[in-house]
Amino acid sequence: MPELVPEPLTREAFAPFGDVVDSAGRAGVPANHGTARRYPALAGIEIRGRDARPVIGIFETRPVRLPFRLLVMERHPLGSQAFQPLREHPWLVVVASDPRRPDGYRAFLAEGRQGIVYRPGVWHHFLLSPERPGRFLVVDREGPGGNLEECAVRDLDLLLPPLPG
Amino acid sequence: MPELVPEPLTREAFAPFGDVVDSAGRAGVPANHGTARRYPALAGIEIRGRDARPVIGIFETRPVRLPFRLLVMERHPLGSQAFQPLREHPWLVVVASDPRRPDGYRAFLAEGRQGIVYRPGVWHHFLLSPERPGRFLVVDREGPGGNLEECAVRDLDLLLPPLPG
Repeated sequence: MPELVPEPLTREAFAPFGDVVDSAGRAGVPANHGTARRYPALAGIEIRGRDARPVIGIFETRPVRLPFRLLVMERHPLGSQAFQPLREHPWLVVVASDPRRPDGYRAFLAEGRQGIVYRPGVWHHFLLSPERPGRFLVVDREGPGGNLEECAVRDLDLLLPPLPG
Repeated sequence: MPELVPEPLTREAFAPFGDVVDSAGRAGVPANHGTARRYPALAGIEIRGRDARPVIGIFETRPVRLPFRLLVMERHPLGSQAFQPLREHPWLVVVASDPRRPDGYRAFLAEGRQGIVYRPGVWHHFLLSPERPGRFLVVDREGPGGNLEECAVRDLDLLLPPLPG
């Protein structure tokens, strides 16, 4: 069964799919009368269509056991979708340029402080917490119109292997 | 000096100022093939004006010492502003219906899992971490137009007292 080995999540590697929300390696600016440091606009949210708006929700995840066979890819043509871990545990991001072609898949191991924003229309697996239960803040779109496409990928037999170490 | 004693942050108490982002006490719905529970649309984000969009940033805060004398209130007429703690430490939220009137102030002690969204135009103090350094995800507005008003309140001598316990 082909293995999809996760690479480290960096801004450069993830750029074709969206943004990484992470203050590490950035200078930031002083704010709030010296009591804070601000890292503004690390990522933008795009919401398409009339009468639509961004909303904030929470996802609580159960850990998945590795190796994990990918189940289903999804995408949201009308809006960005942001995920930010609220506990600092590593998590897995799987994206694809074309979900029917095994060679178009990429997997990323995100550190616990790293969030991501998928651009509208980017194919992604639902989020995967490999070790411990996770809690994520989610920003996505609320509004009229079909904003979910799914593609079953079980038959591709793509396996996320156990993490090293 | 008048003391502004923080009350617990609840949805009901905070309703005049915005939304509380918290899954506690909500049922949620199963998601992601049984690997997750979803609490969708706990809060909405409103972004006003042409060519404006929501953006995601990070704030890192230094702890402030209590008692703390309020310094300055601010508001953003053109957009909501969301703050979600990325470490589960308590934090302080101070809002005012009118920043020139001491009797219009309210303070809330947020638990570490609780985020908030200020509605556009709501007067608030910059965020305060009373005990330990904090890290917050921020969603706010990027775009043309004046979106910051400030009001110095040092002279009101409003004090946030030490937390009980």
